[in-house]
Amino acid sequence: MSSETKTIASFSCPVPVTPNERVVLGHGSGGKLSADLLHRFFLPAFGNPTLSRLDDQAIFAVNRSRLAFTTDSFVVKPLFFPGGNIGSLAVHGTVNDLAMGGAKPLYLSVAFILGEGLPFETLSQVVTSLRDAAEEAGVEVITGDTKVVEKGGCDGMFINTSGIGIVAEGLHLSANQARPGDRILLSGSIGEHGIAILAQREGLEFESPIESDSAALHSLVAAMLATRGEIRCMRDPTRGGLSSALNEIAASSRVGMTLEERAIPLREEVRGACELLGLDPLYVANEGKLVAIVAPDSAEGLLDAMRRHPLGRKAQIIGTVTSDDPGLVVMRTPLGTTRIVDMLAGGQLPRIC
Amino acid sequence: MSSETKTIASFSCPVPVTPNERVVLGHGSGGKLSADLLHRFFLPAFGNPTLSRLDDQAIFAVNRSRLAFTTDSFVVKPLFFPGGNIGSLAVHGTVNDLAMGGAKPLYLSVAFILGEGLPFETLSQVVTSLRDAAEEAGVEVITGDTKVVEKGGCDGMFINTSGIGIVAEGLHLSANQARPGDRILLSGSIGEHGIAILAQREGLEFESPIESDSAALHSLVAAMLATRGEIRCMRDPTRGGLSSALNEIAASSRVGMTLEERAIPLREEVRGACELLGLDPLYVANEGKLVAIVAPDSAEGLLDAMRRHPLGRKAQIIGTVTSDDPGLVVMRTPLGTTRIVDMLAGGQLPRIC
Repeated sequence: MSSETKTIASFSCPVPVTPNERVVLGHGSGGKLSADLLHRFFLPAFGNPTLSRLDDQAIFAVNRSRLAFTTDSFVVKPLFFPGGNIGSLAVHGTVNDLAMGGAKPLYLSVAFILGEGLPFETLSQVVTSLRDAAEEAGVEVITGDTKVVEKGGCDGMFINTSGIGIVAEGLHLSANQARPGDRILLSGSIGEHGIAILAQREGLEFESPIESDSAALHSLVAAMLATRGEIRCMRDPTRGGLSSALNEIAASSRVGMTLEERAIPLREEVRGACELLGLDPLYVANEGKLVAIVAPDSAEGLLDAMRRHPLGRKAQIIGTVTSDDPGLVVMRTPLGTTRIVDMLAGGQLPRIC
Repeated sequence: MSSETKTIASFSCPVPVTPNERVVLGHGSGGKLSADLLHRFFLPAFGNPTLSRLDDQAIFAVNRSRLAFTTDSFVVKPLFFPGGNIGSLAVHGTVNDLAMGGAKPLYLSVAFILGEGLPFETLSQVVTSLRDAAEEAGVEVITGDTKVVEKGGCDGMFINTSGIGIVAEGLHLSANQARPGDRILLSGSIGEHGIAILAQREGLEFESPIESDSAALHSLVAAMLATRGEIRCMRDPTRGGLSSALNEIAASSRVGMTLEERAIPLREEVRGACELLGLDPLYVANEGKLVAIVAPDSAEGLLDAMRRHPLGRKAQIIGTVTSDDPGLVVMRTPLGTTRIVDMLAGGQLPRIC
């Protein structure tokens, strides 16, 4: 007990903090500023081998079972958007974080923070969507919590969902396992969730409406695992978009990546909206897509399996893992030039999940 | 798949909701209004045997292991108070919810919602406290999430902690197991957390400062379980206080309860503060106390074990479970009269956890 106390007493914030430093919106973007917060505060404080893997889920063993555990708070604004709402999103986001570790999602906790004055009708619609999404994903909500804060203390409603899943014996997916020669697979077109939210928030109207791609990906993952192809790791490119997900993997595995721009599926409406809004679709959030790093021999088999699944019909091999410039992701444009695809620096779109 | 779809389509909010009905602060109080929200929205939507136990934690089995799972969001205001802050509280609250199910706490997730403009110094202090509390409780933070919302979108900082623990084979504690004749044990004096928060918030000063009792109770629980005494159920009387915790157990077990007012430990300063503020200490939140319903033969042995533990030194047998008036909790005053101890109707003190 006394040695513990000593450790506690000697812990202090690892990086000097000045009185002027404050949290900005970009710290929640999933890009460079989020990584800064993680490396300055959370990793030094809580660093342990499980957390330090920095995957979307922690894997731990209890007796002979390997379980996955993940948490996500949802603060999306507005609460309702084309293709979903905060309730369905809270299920999809957490189910996907489990699925990206190869886990079969089993149980969810749901914790609401409600703003005083929230209409019961809104709560009812969100609860109904959340329940429908959980039922569709085959997960049970087994524990929960509700807090209420006064008007002005919270913006309508926040939801935290934490999830538990089970991982098959022998399956180890992690961002540090990409190897030169591996192929990069993407399950479909990018940018739809972020653009749907932005359009709703700003009252923009497009000729063909853009819906969020929010969906639970665990059955697509199950179809991929069933091929017995060699998957190194998977990510759902949410906040920070495809670029941030790939940069994280490249950094973690100390490898380079080369993407083929023409191979990345992008709907015309999303391309148009991004051009109009000055956004790069590589940085726009998705909530129903996955990117997988796979062994070269397994790429075609996995691609076939993905394309046979409703959520992977437009799957593509979008690039290759290289040994050049570890940590760097580059993209070859259709014109044959090359550009660096860096992590998102600040916040492109706050509160998209 | 089609039968599932049918179920989904036929689900709708079970109780008609009128456009005028809105969330009020009392819905977060842990009293009658919280129960109303649970019974109108959450149980009809998510009802399953695990959730419907309505204990502080869900217990599920994976292969041969029995695991406990719980979630809690913390919105306490102010973030710092005598005896702790939102970081230590977030650990203690979730560790205690696991411990009340007899689980040994193992892992935590931590999800921050930060308000834009939050000073890094504040974040650093909270993270340090959270880490210290986790280390002291022997739990590992293995997964996390950070979101940032713009100024005015969230009041400084909210934290969600979800927790996983392991339950020994054969141990089944649940609120529906109290039986007439059982004794009601309380681990110490009540009301300190709520009064400490209120005093801090309102700038009240007392002759002797009142500190929150916030503490992790898992080692006290371990000491109780080691006696092999028969424990039916345990609760930590947080929001809604001792009265709400006992009313929930009485309702769930369909039993009555008779409390002895003179046996309930209450510090003089807390009694004085409650009189001054017009609060009933039975309804004021605790964050480091537990109430246990135990078999009559085991009461003395368990009481001894509690009193030998630093967090149970003032433990008392405060009452008896009866077969009179199922669901009703009554208290005998020192004058020999009897009063009904009902559930908290509205919200006595918002945002105390």
